[in-house]
Amino acid sequence: MPSPSHEDALTSWLASLATQGPERLIGDDAAFLHLPGDWAITTDQQVAGTHFPAGLAPATLAHRAVAINLSDLAAVGARPRYAFLTLAAPVDFAVKPFFRALVTAGRKHGLELAGGDLARSDQLRLSLTLLGQRPARSRWLRRSAARPADLLWLGGTVGESALGQRLLARRARTASGRVAVPKSIAHDRALTQAARAAVRRHLEPTAQLELGYWLGKRRRAAAIDLSDGLALDLTRLCRASGVGAIIERDGLPLPRDGERLAAALGEDMEKLALGGGEDYILLFALPPSLSVPKEFGCTPIGVVTADKRILLRSAGKLRPLKPTGWDHLIPGTARKPR
Amino acid sequence: MPSPSHEDALTSWLASLATQGPERLIGDDAAFLHLPGDWAITTDQQVAGTHFPAGLAPATLAHRAVAINLSDLAAVGARPRYAFLTLAAPVDFAVKPFFRALVTAGRKHGLELAGGDLARSDQLRLSLTLLGQRPARSRWLRRSAARPADLLWLGGTVGESALGQRLLARRARTASGRVAVPKSIAHDRALTQAARAAVRRHLEPTAQLELGYWLGKRRRAAAIDLSDGLALDLTRLCRASGVGAIIERDGLPLPRDGERLAAALGEDMEKLALGGGEDYILLFALPPSLSVPKEFGCTPIGVVTADKRILLRSAGKLRPLKPTGWDHLIPGTARKPR
Repeated sequence: MPSPSHEDALTSWLASLATQGPERLIGDDAAFLHLPGDWAITTDQQVAGTHFPAGLAPATLAHRAVAINLSDLAAVGARPRYAFLTLAAPVDFAVKPFFRALVTAGRKHGLELAGGDLARSDQLRLSLTLLGQRPARSRWLRRSAARPADLLWLGGTVGESALGQRLLARRARTASGRVAVPKSIAHDRALTQAARAAVRRHLEPTAQLELGYWLGKRRRAAAIDLSDGLALDLTRLCRASGVGAIIERDGLPLPRDGERLAAALGEDMEKLALGGGEDYILLFALPPSLSVPKEFGCTPIGVVTADKRILLRSAGKLRPLKPTGWDHLIPGTARKPR
Repeated sequence: MPSPSHEDALTSWLASLATQGPERLIGDDAAFLHLPGDWAITTDQQVAGTHFPAGLAPATLAHRAVAINLSDLAAVGARPRYAFLTLAAPVDFAVKPFFRALVTAGRKHGLELAGGDLARSDQLRLSLTLLGQRPARSRWLRRSAARPADLLWLGGTVGESALGQRLLARRARTASGRVAVPKSIAHDRALTQAARAAVRRHLEPTAQLELGYWLGKRRRAAAIDLSDGLALDLTRLCRASGVGAIIERDGLPLPRDGERLAAALGEDMEKLALGGGEDYILLFALPPSLSVPKEFGCTPIGVVTADKRILLRSAGKLRPLKPTGWDHLIPGTARKPR
């Protein structure tokens, strides 16, 4: 028997790593799935230098990529089931730690790695396609379901991931789980803690799957996950629903000590909160009579209006909220908010 | 209403381009699909400089990427239904011609573009995930179904795509459908025709979907698509089936004037046929009593053996057939056969 190629040896290793049940999904030109019911499919990519800092630990990259894609399933209320990966990586990329982390991170949420494609490339890049199932007695969450008088809610704080990204750009470093913060803030314990939390939030987002399931069981809910910044993603939700919104600046949930940390970094916390992006929490609209269970940690931030303008109330005044945020197609904005 | 971002404007354009029926699949965080029956899912990536020459026309790239991924569906006998794309492209990449060609190429084979993700990157890369349905009264084709005494068949010639790749590497150029061949062979009309056909074969492969459907209706058939070279992909099929094979060197279907063209380029036609890769035709094993309809243009190339060795009979002698071909994980082999 001839020895297999390096690629085939890795594929075999991966097939045994990824296989839980009696049936192997990896090994033919396609994976064979019986898919009863309704499915949500999402695909997303991560490119080194654009979506994550080059040099990120392979395991961290794997966890982060899985969480970011899971966030799309959370936004529609889907239960994760299957993942397909393409990975293009430089020669020195630690493929096995990456895959171990990917399989572990996926399995924690019910995801099975069912197929993929590997290649060499100077630049690290991966894309994930996830299949999620509609839970029994649930509705899909859609961007288009918001109606005037709905309350708008956020599933967590905004701007913290952007703070973390700024810290990493200023050479905050992580090593074996510890985050080293820049000297300029290291003397202040509260700022140091806020900085560490921000870097972790950026590198280790958590998809709000349980919140998505809960929303899917309401009689009506519109949702989107915040990937490109509150202002831009809110604009998307409002356009899809044909509505407007008024957001309360003072109601925006900011990270603890966020304003002070932003100031220490020469950043504007409000800008980061509105357009920083990569928050990976859900923004959703619910009929005002519905309350969100406290354990989800959600905050009402405004109201849906019939008037199609999107406004921010700040210091008692209304002003238009511009759809700032990441635009993946404009050079230069892929790394920082406009 | 604020104006949409560039990305959102493109997504809207794409949604209307890709939508055939009343339901829009593009516009939420995931596509919602009802998927009755059995499905095959495959994912594959194309990286500039690794999988295709940098500077390839966007429309050609789109057609080629679709065909290459469809070839995986052909290899399992699936009927194409949905496509998901991630695209990372430089600022000057012509996104709209690319998408128009992608949607057109897919639609020709029943594929609907159902979702995707766009990003900027210095290096052009794309990955496609395809969902194909099992046709009624068909079996999935698997690599593991070959049995001793089966005949091995090829769905077309081998080595022609590799010849085309060598020609492109030597600056054969395509412009508005015409292929310019190197001066060294331009004096010879037959060689010029062979060269043009080879470049076209490399740039415009055709997935053997109809052959896949036909095979899926036989009582037993094993199949794989030749992407990494006959020797390597045959080894994969044999390993999955726990069998060996004897291949007849003189029975290998070579492109017309291929040997002369290879010689003119200083290449070895046999090496290209066995390990050149990117043939994108089906290699399959059928019980010897079954005949393949002539219109599929298939050729029997050998026999499956219980002995697990993979042998090539050449000039009356048997020698081991090494699994040469592309190994995407070995530096340097991604562009040329080992």
